[in-house]
Amino acid sequence: MAKFMDVHSGFFGVTHEELDAAHCADLKIEAEEGVHFERAWLDPELGKVFCLSTGPSKEAILRIHERAGHPTTEIYELTEEV
Amino acid sequence: MAKFMDVHSGFFGVTHEELDAAHCADLKIEAEEGVHFERAWLDPELGKVFCLSTGPSKEAILRIHERAGHPTTEIYELTEEV
Repeated sequence: MAKFMDVHSGFFGVTHEELDAAHCADLKIEAEEGVHFERAWLDPELGKVFCLSTGPSKEAILRIHERAGHPTTEIYELTEEV
Repeated sequence: MAKFMDVHSGFFGVTHEELDAAHCADLKIEAEEGVHFERAWLDPELGKVFCLSTGPSKEAILRIHERAGHPTTEIYELTEEV
């Protein structure tokens, strides 16, 4: 199982409730791809969202985010952590 | 105290040891600005590093990273988290 950070841009002015709803939409279906979204952080002023996840591949992360309605192709595999 | 994610680009092929040394360089001086770098994640293939921190301002984060030898101006204030 690998760890990933994916980045969403253009999410200006998103609220806590909207972020939570988007995260929950991922959580509802993530098991179908063996993915788990651990955490999501938002900068509403600059419109950035960072999602930390584990899963079998970038493609699995992408498919869950796509089906949940917020696709991004900016996905990084985090092979090192300190 | 606010939470931040900063992003470094171009760190292709960086090793675990190099990431750890860079993180330790931050930790040694971070208290001087009231900053704490909690975690750093690396994608050596795409050359990206993500640092999660707490601190009083973006400028404080930037100053510590600059003095530690790895400045970046790509710093996001994470006002929401799920």
